[in-house]
Amino acid sequence: MKSPPTELPQSNTGLSVDAERLLSSLAAMAELGATPKGGVNRQTLTDLDREARDLFCTWCDEAGLSVRVDEMGNLFARRAGRDDNRDPVQTGSHLDTQPTGGRYDGALGVLAGLEVMRALNDADYVTEAPLELVMWTNEEGCRFAPAMMGSGVHAGLHDRDFMMQVEDPDGRSFGEELQRIGYQGPIPCTYRRNPTGALIELHIEQGPLLEDEGIAIGVVTGGQAQRWYEIELVGMESHAGTTPMPVRRDALVAAAGIVTAVRALGEEFAPHARTTCGVLEARPNSRNVIPGSVFLTVDMRHPDAQVLATMDARLRAAAGDSAGRERVTCTVRQILEVPAVEFHAEVVEAVRSATADLSYSHRDIISGAGHDAMNVARVAPAGMVFIPCVDGISHNEIENALPDDIIRGANVLLGALVSLADRPGLDTAA
Amino acid sequence: MKSPPTELPQSNTGLSVDAERLLSSLAAMAELGATPKGGVNRQTLTDLDREARDLFCTWCDEAGLSVRVDEMGNLFARRAGRDDNRDPVQTGSHLDTQPTGGRYDGALGVLAGLEVMRALNDADYVTEAPLELVMWTNEEGCRFAPAMMGSGVHAGLHDRDFMMQVEDPDGRSFGEELQRIGYQGPIPCTYRRNPTGALIELHIEQGPLLEDEGIAIGVVTGGQAQRWYEIELVGMESHAGTTPMPVRRDALVAAAGIVTAVRALGEEFAPHARTTCGVLEARPNSRNVIPGSVFLTVDMRHPDAQVLATMDARLRAAAGDSAGRERVTCTVRQILEVPAVEFHAEVVEAVRSATADLSYSHRDIISGAGHDAMNVARVAPAGMVFIPCVDGISHNEIENALPDDIIRGANVLLGALVSLADRPGLDTAA
Repeated sequence: MKSPPTELPQSNTGLSVDAERLLSSLAAMAELGATPKGGVNRQTLTDLDREARDLFCTWCDEAGLSVRVDEMGNLFARRAGRDDNRDPVQTGSHLDTQPTGGRYDGALGVLAGLEVMRALNDADYVTEAPLELVMWTNEEGCRFAPAMMGSGVHAGLHDRDFMMQVEDPDGRSFGEELQRIGYQGPIPCTYRRNPTGALIELHIEQGPLLEDEGIAIGVVTGGQAQRWYEIELVGMESHAGTTPMPVRRDALVAAAGIVTAVRALGEEFAPHARTTCGVLEARPNSRNVIPGSVFLTVDMRHPDAQVLATMDARLRAAAGDSAGRERVTCTVRQILEVPAVEFHAEVVEAVRSATADLSYSHRDIISGAGHDAMNVARVAPAGMVFIPCVDGISHNEIENALPDDIIRGANVLLGALVSLADRPGLDTAA
Repeated sequence: MKSPPTELPQSNTGLSVDAERLLSSLAAMAELGATPKGGVNRQTLTDLDREARDLFCTWCDEAGLSVRVDEMGNLFARRAGRDDNRDPVQTGSHLDTQPTGGRYDGALGVLAGLEVMRALNDADYVTEAPLELVMWTNEEGCRFAPAMMGSGVHAGLHDRDFMMQVEDPDGRSFGEELQRIGYQGPIPCTYRRNPTGALIELHIEQGPLLEDEGIAIGVVTGGQAQRWYEIELVGMESHAGTTPMPVRRDALVAAAGIVTAVRALGEEFAPHARTTCGVLEARPNSRNVIPGSVFLTVDMRHPDAQVLATMDARLRAAAGDSAGRERVTCTVRQILEVPAVEFHAEVVEAVRSATADLSYSHRDIISGAGHDAMNVARVAPAGMVFIPCVDGISHNEIENALPDDIIRGANVLLGALVSLADRPGLDTAA
């Protein structure tokens, strides 16, 4: 991170980001929740999240941006346009991380957006439409499920009151924790009150495609469909030394069968399917007690909603079979449904043009991960820019992105945002 | 529990326990850590364990027993004999429970032993050898591994200093917690300082055999061999939505293969083998992150040490295979080895005679579970008495034993202890 980036081509507009300033802001943010392995643990609505928000607000203030906070704790930092009545062109991402997260997932999109604002300030450049930098609450969903909660309520996909009641594993509610860190704002959380002329989110790819192909920029055309499930298995706790094998009702044995079946589903629907069991909790979790119950989560994704529906049926059948063999009761509950997303043609074109303008290599790409921009895309023109990450690794403390790639991504973001903000008419095209 | 027991035959000695007093002591002890489902959560060295020990000491004091505490927190409550220089005849068990444990596992043996003392007091009966009631620390091993820790150090099977350093899942050491609850005594923890003339432990069977065959008393002739393992799997954390299936190194998928293989091992070596994965912890345990590492425990038992050695080799091979398929590193560490135990012939015969004397139905039985008496058996004459438990269920909050069975077991214990304490010469037979 410390080595200065090499000389990169500049945009036709003459505008470009300040590489050192952006990299040093990223480094400063990564100190909040820094882990010994070089990653970040800054889970949503923790004290560290508050510190990150405070730092964000300080930087926005220094850049002359005025910050609004909505009920879900989403932050909107505004830079006035020539015609301030137009719907703002927005960019942003999130500052929360996974428990063993990296320094770029989310933070890159927020701080590159901030750098765009700073670069425009330096150039005394005022866009036609106002610009807004958005920080969405609880994108990761690891502490409070579901993921992309702030943008989801904003886009009308989730009920605000229901989300306030969601509890973390320690039984603390989202609403209490949001109030506790002092970031529950007065503004209703809805795109109707905080409208979007257009939105672009910059993010690391979190997969290996761009790096493998040696390509600098991913022009994201959409995102795959995604479903989350919670599976509860209830068997019978009993003594590990005395209970004969044939009479056991071992919830962990049933869960193991499901984990194996979920992996097989992903392989069967290759190459696009992604299937993962991320959480497994066995109870009572004692060495010499047959596990009486297990809580298990499943994450399944595919770009084709029809295929995902087939996978859903197969998952339910496999779970029932595995539980039935062990005479364990099994409840499968779907808790999240993200339909496949197609990004707005004009926004995608703005990203592609800005990339071409800078002569960076690029390809179209479908996002494997869920992102806040996909929620916004339900109600407004949206798109995304991807940059490579090292070895395609993310949601890991060793997640990394190269300085050159970061700067290229930020310059594409700058060019695309300015072109959208200066273009007449798009702001009512949703 | 509240219905009075039916009329039971009395022993030839005329001695018998007070059924109501024993049942009411069991009920009082079960209130400490009582769970809504009727079980008990009174894990070792917790505040509840302290309360249980305090109550035990109060009752011992009321019964005129003098209590000694050793370095491991084992409690020895003594009732003087006519010849107080003889090694004491001991009985006892443990007061700690599993997180979702029952009210009889352990407590029965301690409180039936107490009732024997009270009954002898009522009858003004003084045995030749002194009697001792023993409460062993940390039999369950669920909070601090290994199980049967107090009796294990006493018998010289574990190193005292090493055990003091063992930590619970929250990082608190055994030694600190023992001091915290105020039960680290001054007496060295060793059978050389606290010798055993003979020992009998009364326990629920924790399996279905006695109940299935309608038999009142199990004359325990020995215990099966047992091994505990810890398996650590390390793969690669990565994003669940973007990481292609073929490049994943999912520690939970590898663990699922091991759980399935462990179950298959128990079935292959039927009917005597018992194989269980009791603890599984996945990290980072987040819904949309491929699990990077898993901690898993395995408990394997068989009456034949040779067969258990074969099972050990098969476990290691299966773990290596499952981890290898997923390109996950795998470390298998054995942390406990309990050899098969054959109880002392004179003690077994004393139990059998006392049972016959009372005209109770009985059969010889091998213990599937580990018990403190098995540790003592390494260094002194020891044996056990089993009574049926409902549906063979233990290590479960619905664990239950019928009042008649409890009273029969206590009367057998009384008869066998008195016969051993009054018999000349056994106390040096170890």
